[in-house]
Amino acid sequence: MKFIHTADWHLGKLVHGVYMTEEQREVLHQFAKVVEEEKPDAVVIAGDLYDRSIPPTSAVELLNEMLFKINIELETPIVAISGNHDSSERLSFGSSWFQHSKFYLKGKVDDQFSPVRVNGVNFYCVPYAEPGVIRQLLGDDSVHSHQEAMKALIGKIEKEMDHREVNVFVGHAFVLGGKTSESERTLSVGGSGCVGAELFAPFHYTALGHLHSPDAINHETVRYSGSLLKYSFSEAKQRKSISVVTIEEGGAFSIEEKTLMPKRDMREIEGTLEELLDPSRIQKEQAEDYLKITLHDRGAIIDPMGKLRQAYPNILHLERQIDILDQRKKEGYEMKREGKKSDIDLFADFYSQMTTDSFTAEKRKIMERVIQEARLEADQK
Amino acid sequence: MKFIHTADWHLGKLVHGVYMTEEQREVLHQFAKVVEEEKPDAVVIAGDLYDRSIPPTSAVELLNEMLFKINIELETPIVAISGNHDSSERLSFGSSWFQHSKFYLKGKVDDQFSPVRVNGVNFYCVPYAEPGVIRQLLGDDSVHSHQEAMKALIGKIEKEMDHREVNVFVGHAFVLGGKTSESERTLSVGGSGCVGAELFAPFHYTALGHLHSPDAINHETVRYSGSLLKYSFSEAKQRKSISVVTIEEGGAFSIEEKTLMPKRDMREIEGTLEELLDPSRIQKEQAEDYLKITLHDRGAIIDPMGKLRQAYPNILHLERQIDILDQRKKEGYEMKREGKKSDIDLFADFYSQMTTDSFTAEKRKIMERVIQEARLEADQK
Repeated sequence: MKFIHTADWHLGKLVHGVYMTEEQREVLHQFAKVVEEEKPDAVVIAGDLYDRSIPPTSAVELLNEMLFKINIELETPIVAISGNHDSSERLSFGSSWFQHSKFYLKGKVDDQFSPVRVNGVNFYCVPYAEPGVIRQLLGDDSVHSHQEAMKALIGKIEKEMDHREVNVFVGHAFVLGGKTSESERTLSVGGSGCVGAELFAPFHYTALGHLHSPDAINHETVRYSGSLLKYSFSEAKQRKSISVVTIEEGGAFSIEEKTLMPKRDMREIEGTLEELLDPSRIQKEQAEDYLKITLHDRGAIIDPMGKLRQAYPNILHLERQIDILDQRKKEGYEMKREGKKSDIDLFADFYSQMTTDSFTAEKRKIMERVIQEARLEADQK
Repeated sequence: MKFIHTADWHLGKLVHGVYMTEEQREVLHQFAKVVEEEKPDAVVIAGDLYDRSIPPTSAVELLNEMLFKINIELETPIVAISGNHDSSERLSFGSSWFQHSKFYLKGKVDDQFSPVRVNGVNFYCVPYAEPGVIRQLLGDDSVHSHQEAMKALIGKIEKEMDHREVNVFVGHAFVLGGKTSESERTLSVGGSGCVGAELFAPFHYTALGHLHSPDAINHETVRYSGSLLKYSFSEAKQRKSISVVTIEEGGAFSIEEKTLMPKRDMREIEGTLEELLDPSRIQKEQAEDYLKITLHDRGAIIDPMGKLRQAYPNILHLERQIDILDQRKKEGYEMKREGKKSDIDLFADFYSQMTTDSFTAEKRKIMERVIQEARLEADQK
């Protein structure tokens, strides 16, 4: 049985004031082509189909168009859940009708823990939900964190599960753990939004959405597909892919990652204005890409954005390298650092050297509370 | 063939700050009961399913629930269009899937003029659209008014129509005309939003939405069903109903109107505070109704709303009878009216006597233009 695992489409996303709809349409058409060629038994979308609870109408139309293409025209079953960016109620509209053509959309968590069954594989679908919602749903007052909520939900699922069958979990959560990640420690901190990967042990494969990189965790069976596109410059160096998962009767699976190519990449470049405007440099660059440009020039430059836009039409963000004065301030701060001051006084010094605002009594109060909370937490460990 | 004609559900409607959702749910459950008993071949909803383009999630859930009940549970085909209050794009989401179970939802006008066919009857569905949209859709530069847009659309439909069959039009528009209406004259006024009833002559029955009363026009074949509920005090005296239409093979039809009973009516009552708080009066009233109360008392009253709310918990609007001084002003104006003044001077007198504002040069300019346009129009007739 073969399915495609994707997530985090974020249709209707605005990046630095630019709607990504056309990029998304382009990449989703490539996605549909992969579906056409691979002929999977299902497409699994692990949440955040939209970027916000009330998406722009162009995003609504694009989602409708693409799901129609995949589900009706290509006759491919779809298993989808809502993520934290979707409105579970709005996304749910019509889902009872969608099932007729094997489009299984679970917008809201409910007390039905039976799976969607496609070609002998059970898909257990758990849309994103706040712990409070799960606490109320299950009538379980011990549920306060995402970890506890997920544990309780999987406990319910396990009661219904036949372990001799192939079971796949579809979820949208901030999952930590796995072979190389060193972040498990964070889980022990109260109130964290994280969920431990070990919870998904009952499943042969866990198809996640929420984190935007397929490398977000390194785990054998618990996986993020990565988002459809790069949605911020912090993702500029991330791979983006969809996963074609072929799963055997015993639950063993293999993965082939397919890369979708947006017309315009999202990248960071840097240099002086002169270097960046050098025709040989422009020729080497994919000048149409969405760019964050860091200028190395010092002192005043006249209309750098205007000049750069002529060569690089899709600059989303332009910044100057850190100011010399700020740099010197920082260095000065390091030298003046003394050992005897209280934390709050040290912070007050730091604040006044790093900003031009005054460190008011109100700010001091807030910071004192933060320091106290941090101490308490450190003591509890 | 039997179908139910309804329209103007306006789910998500706020009346004087109160969401009507619970009233709507109550009445829609009665509606579903009528469907269950009458077993019609179709339910026709002629637009304004929602009250606004982005309805609250409770309205989205209610619509989903009711359409599911009617279409899936009661296995009744639904023919629906969007009205001017709906967002055609948002309402359209999923409509391709809905068709599987004979739920035909047309959110956006397009160049497909073929009908939805249910049990031998053709339903030609034309959602609400601005004339500009139709102008562009048909590439017909002569379309400027709603009258011209509807004429052009029906022209297209007529080309495809088989007049030997039974043809029903489903639309959402401000239609005037018919036996008793004297408002046809308005149609000749340029730029009006109205459409003449005579345009629908090719159809055996025209199921309209937009005006909220079944008595809005008195025409043999062109009909409004009326809205689901009373949605403003101006509708307090309107009948509200749904129409059960039984149509014969030749196109002859009979109508049975069914009245849905909201838990709370919307009514206007009046009297002095003392009269209204008299226990015998309260007992006679349906005190839980949504009320607009007009108080006859003169002079100061302390906290009338607080006192009235104790007896009438769902007052939506409270007002005092028109002030004596205003009344005297009006009477005085009538007496001083002279014959020799120009229209604009007469209006200036009227304005200053009826309001406390001054009739500024700017206001005079606007009024002069209005008078001039009115004269021009009168001359053209």
